[in-house]
Amino acid sequence: MELYFITHNESKFLEAEEIGKEYSVSINWVNQEYEEIQNNKLETIALKSCKRILQKEPSLNNKNFFLEDAGLFIEALDGFPGPYSSYVFKTIGNEGILKLMEEEKNRRAFFKSVIAYYSNNETKIHTGKTEGEIIHNMRGEKGFGFDPIFQPTNSNATFAEMSLETKNLYSHRQKSLRELLTSL
Amino acid sequence: MELYFITHNESKFLEAEEIGKEYSVSINWVNQEYEEIQNNKLETIALKSCKRILQKEPSLNNKNFFLEDAGLFIEALDGFPGPYSSYVFKTIGNEGILKLMEEEKNRRAFFKSVIAYYSNNETKIHTGKTEGEIIHNMRGEKGFGFDPIFQPTNSNATFAEMSLETKNLYSHRQKSLRELLTSL
Repeated sequence: MELYFITHNESKFLEAEEIGKEYSVSINWVNQEYEEIQNNKLETIALKSCKRILQKEPSLNNKNFFLEDAGLFIEALDGFPGPYSSYVFKTIGNEGILKLMEEEKNRRAFFKSVIAYYSNNETKIHTGKTEGEIIHNMRGEKGFGFDPIFQPTNSNATFAEMSLETKNLYSHRQKSLRELLTSL
Repeated sequence: MELYFITHNESKFLEAEEIGKEYSVSINWVNQEYEEIQNNKLETIALKSCKRILQKEPSLNNKNFFLEDAGLFIEALDGFPGPYSSYVFKTIGNEGILKLMEEEKNRRAFFKSVIAYYSNNETKIHTGKTEGEIIHNMRGEKGFGFDPIFQPTNSNATFAEMSLETKNLYSHRQKSLRELLTSL
């Protein structure tokens, strides 16, 4: 089977391509940026992105394609930074999040990945969630974004302290992708 | 002359209607929600919103209409919360912004309002900016959003301590609207 992954991010594609092989699915890269709407729900953002891409690229109508959106949701901050995680990372960064969480006892947070998958005139949502906590000081230099302040449940290491292989065992993005691949 | 203001916010419309009268312009309310894209620039968001509304409501093609978007941009936080001000207000609120700014000496910030105005197949941008600073503790109970922590330059009061009349003298939204009305 052949799928198309619409993403501007090469490492996301390469990761997906590898996992696809386990399921005998060939994943092709469509290196394309697209506009996302402002919304509190990743699911809504991903569904609308799918719809817009189809309007812009009618040739995709006959293909099976997907796109992915993700965010960090912190319970004590009402889900902030959520769908705006990449903007928040670029502006206030990990330091900003740690500051907001300084005196906070509830450290619960989760990373969530949402895939919108289009096939045969239908769009379906697949999600992956990794629960964990916001630690008090950054640790680790691997990964990217909020990885140095997020420690998944049942781990003593942050995402930024893990090898890619270990991180993948916990990864929200792998979970949503495997859910998609299993559903095919 | 007759203009249509597309907004879901009645008080924004009523304010605009009043100012319109000063310019002998009759402003009508189109009470409609629309999707905004994620982007760092208010101008881009407003232009794209215009384009999308025209696609959805082709009847607007023959009308003169506008929409408005605004945000608070804090210099020391790289422009945060900027275009995502309403989401940030709903999640971390004024308390969150004050915490992020706790030890910050550079308190400079501005409110910016951007109007996208469509007429005769053309969309033009009008902007209004109000410079000021983020104070150290909330003051005042009027207004909404970040008003209690923003004090415009040359004032000793925050937006939330001002009567509506006084606030209007400083208002970024009035500036962009008057720029539009003057240009007609």
